[in-house]
Amino acid sequence: MVWSGKAVSTSNLPLSGARLWDSLMEMAKIGGTAKGGSNRQTLTEVDNQGRHLLARWAQQAGCTLTVDRIGNMMLRREGTDPKAKPIAFGSHLDTQPTGGKFDGVLGVLAGLELMRAVHEAGIQTRAPLLLINWTNEEGARFAPPMMGSGVAMGVFTEEEILAKQDQEGAVFGTELEAIGWRGEADPTMLRDCAAYFELHIEQGKILEDEGLELGVVDRALCQNWLEVVVTGENAHGGSPMAGRKDALMGAAKLISALEEIALTTLAPDGEPGRATVGQMRIHPSSRNVAPDDVWFSVDTRHSDAPALDLMAQKLRDAAAAIGAERGLGFEVKDFWYSPLTPFDAKLVAHCQESAKARGLKFKTMPTGIGHDAVYMARHVPTVMIFTPCHGGLSHNEAESITPEWAEAGLKVLADAVLATAEVV
Amino acid sequence: MVWSGKAVSTSNLPLSGARLWDSLMEMAKIGGTAKGGSNRQTLTEVDNQGRHLLARWAQQAGCTLTVDRIGNMMLRREGTDPKAKPIAFGSHLDTQPTGGKFDGVLGVLAGLELMRAVHEAGIQTRAPLLLINWTNEEGARFAPPMMGSGVAMGVFTEEEILAKQDQEGAVFGTELEAIGWRGEADPTMLRDCAAYFELHIEQGKILEDEGLELGVVDRALCQNWLEVVVTGENAHGGSPMAGRKDALMGAAKLISALEEIALTTLAPDGEPGRATVGQMRIHPSSRNVAPDDVWFSVDTRHSDAPALDLMAQKLRDAAAAIGAERGLGFEVKDFWYSPLTPFDAKLVAHCQESAKARGLKFKTMPTGIGHDAVYMARHVPTVMIFTPCHGGLSHNEAESITPEWAEAGLKVLADAVLATAEVV
Repeated sequence: MVWSGKAVSTSNLPLSGARLWDSLMEMAKIGGTAKGGSNRQTLTEVDNQGRHLLARWAQQAGCTLTVDRIGNMMLRREGTDPKAKPIAFGSHLDTQPTGGKFDGVLGVLAGLELMRAVHEAGIQTRAPLLLINWTNEEGARFAPPMMGSGVAMGVFTEEEILAKQDQEGAVFGTELEAIGWRGEADPTMLRDCAAYFELHIEQGKILEDEGLELGVVDRALCQNWLEVVVTGENAHGGSPMAGRKDALMGAAKLISALEEIALTTLAPDGEPGRATVGQMRIHPSSRNVAPDDVWFSVDTRHSDAPALDLMAQKLRDAAAAIGAERGLGFEVKDFWYSPLTPFDAKLVAHCQESAKARGLKFKTMPTGIGHDAVYMARHVPTVMIFTPCHGGLSHNEAESITPEWAEAGLKVLADAVLATAEVV
Repeated sequence: MVWSGKAVSTSNLPLSGARLWDSLMEMAKIGGTAKGGSNRQTLTEVDNQGRHLLARWAQQAGCTLTVDRIGNMMLRREGTDPKAKPIAFGSHLDTQPTGGKFDGVLGVLAGLELMRAVHEAGIQTRAPLLLINWTNEEGARFAPPMMGSGVAMGVFTEEEILAKQDQEGAVFGTELEAIGWRGEADPTMLRDCAAYFELHIEQGKILEDEGLELGVVDRALCQNWLEVVVTGENAHGGSPMAGRKDALMGAAKLISALEEIALTTLAPDGEPGRATVGQMRIHPSSRNVAPDDVWFSVDTRHSDAPALDLMAQKLRDAAAAIGAERGLGFEVKDFWYSPLTPFDAKLVAHCQESAKARGLKFKTMPTGIGHDAVYMARHVPTVMIFTPCHGGLSHNEAESITPEWAEAGLKVLADAVLATAEVV
C-alpha cells in the first residue's frame, strides 16, 4: 500500500468505474421515466425505495446507517482514531419531476463506490468516513431546496421545515414519517465533520466546451435576487405611441440593460457577472392593450461580492433613467441574498493534486449554482468536484455524462477523501 | 324651418344636451358598479334591462322596434319616400366587466336624443331614420368583439356566432333566447342602409391633449396582428452568460426594436405606426432558469397600408438579425389582418361642415380602434364622430367625458344625419 496521507494515485485501490456506472443505471430505474430520466421526488415511495437500495449497498460495504430527524442518511465507516471527526462526502438521491440520472446521484454513488473499494481492500483510515444522502436537495416538491443540509447547518430550523407543505397540502414532517425515514439523530451534529466533499455534474457546459474532464470547485458565487415592478398606464393598441406609458416597453429596455450590466461588471480577475430574468407577469395581458404593470424576477450572481453589489446599483440607476425618460415608475426590490462562499484551500489543493497525478485535464472554477456543499461550507471545510455533462443539460430527462467522466470524478473524490482521512 | 338637405345649424331643433346626459346617467344605473362604472355585459339580465329601457324610450319618441336573429335592435322612424333606404346611426349598450358609462352608450343615446328631438319638432325626413344598438360590440363575455355588426356585414356567419361559448360554457344562441332578444329579422338587411353614423368616445387622448371638442373620423387604421415565438436553450441562473441562448433576452431586444420600428415607419403624411406587445408567456418560468421559450403577441397598426406591411417586414428582419447574433430561433407568425378602411367622403364632409357651422374646435383623424362602424363600412357609406374623453381612459369604471363634449357630439351627429336623410 502506498497511502501516505497525501493525495496520491489510488491505482491499487479497487475503484470500479464500471460498478459505479452499473449502480447509477440501477438507481435510475427507481422512478425511471419513459424518456430515460428519473422522477424520484423527495419523500415519495420511490425516494423510499432509492434510500433502501443505497442503505443495503452501503451496509454490504461495511457501513452503518444513521438517520437524523430531517431524514438525512449517514452511512459511516469507522476510523482508527476514536477522537477523529468524520470525513464526509455525498450528495442527494432526490430528483426533479423530470430529472436525469446523475444530478446528485453521481455524488452519492461515487461515495458508495469509494466505500466499497475501501471495504474490499481492507483499508483503514484514521478518521471515520461518512457518506451522506441529503434530504430534499431539489426543492421541487417541497420548497425551498437544500432542506437537509440547510437544517443541519442552521440555515433553517427543524420546525419550519417539518411544517412545509407541497402543492397538494401534504406536510413535510408527515410525509417523512410516512415513508419511514424520520430518524432520531440530531441533524446539527453534521457540523462536527472534519471535511465535506461533493462530486456533482457541472450543470453547465464550460468543462465540455473547453475539452476538460474535471473541475475543482474552489468557491460558490454570491447571489443577489431582486424583483422589479414597472408601473405605467394602459393604452389601447389603437392609440398613438406618443402619449403612452407602456410598462412592457420600459421593462424590455431594462432587461436589455441588465444583460449589458452583467457582461460589463467584472471581477478583478476579469470574470463577468450573470443575470437571469426567469419570470415575468404582465397586466392586463390583452393583445391590444399596452400593459400598465409589469413584474419580473432578477437573479444576479458574481464571483466577486463588490461587483455583485455594483450590478444592483447599476440596475437601479438604469431603472431610474428609463423611468424618467418614459414617465414610468420602477421599483427594484431586494428578494434574497447569498454571500460568496470560498471553499477550503487545503481540500481544493488535495483535489488539484489528485487531478494532476491522475493526468486529468481539469480547471479550478466556481460554482454558480447552489448545492448542499454551499450550506455545509458554513461550518465544515468543504470542496466540490465537477464532472462535465453534455450540453450543460440538467433538470432534464436527457441529462447525460460519459462513464469516463464519472470515473475521473470518482478517482479524484477517492484520492482527496483518503488523503484527508489519512490511510493508516 | 331651415332644413335644406345640407349640414346646417339645427338651432331650431329641440336637441337637449341635458336630456341626453340624464339618459346616460339613467342607463348607467343598469349594471352600475360601486366605482361609478357599468357592468352590462352582453346577453346578461342587465343587458336585457338596458335594451328594454332603450326600446321604451325610443318607442315613446315614435320609433318602431325590429330585432334581428343576432339580437341587433333597430329603432325606426319612417321617412316620406317609401323607396329611400334608411339613414342609420347608433353604437352599443353592452360594456366591459369594468366598463364606463360612455363607451358605446353615448352613440346609442345621442341617436335616441336625435329621435326625440325630431319627434317633438314633428320633422319629416325623406329617408327613414334607423337607430341601431349592436349586439356584443365588446367581446368581453363572448369573443370575438363586434359580433352583431360582423354578422350583419358578413364578416362572421350567423351559425358560428350563435355557437360561441363564454368561459362558463354558456352558448351565445341559448343566452340570446334566454334574455328574450332573439328576433326574426335577417341581420344582413342592414347592408341595405344608405349611410351609417357612429358617435363614440375617442378612447385616446389626442383631442383632450390638443384642446379640441370633437373629432371627425375619416378612416380606420389597418391592423396587422402577429405572434412571435423565440426558441433558445434554458440555462441555470448560475451558468456563465457566454454560452447562453436566453430566449427572453432575445425577446427583450426584439420588443425594443418593434417600438423603434413603429416610431420610424411613417405614412406619406408623416404619421408613425403603432405597436403593442400585450401578452407574453415564458417557459419554464422559474426565477433561476434563463428561459428557453418565449411567446408574445404583436399588435401593429398604421394609417398607411404599405407602411404597415413594411413594419412587419422590418420586424421579421430584426428577428432574423437578433436570432443570428444570439443563436436563437425566431418565428414571426401572421395572426389577423384588418385592412385600412376609408370612411365615406361625403359623410365626412357633412360632419366637418356641421362642426365648422357649430363653431367647434375639431380635427379630422383616423380611429386606431375597431368599432361596429368599421365592419359597417364594408357595405354602407360610413363615418364616425369622436368625443374627447378624460385622459384617454376607457374600458374602465372611471371613464369620463363632460356634458359639453357629449352635446357637441350630439349636435354634429344630428346635423350630419339630417343633412343626409334630407329634411322635407
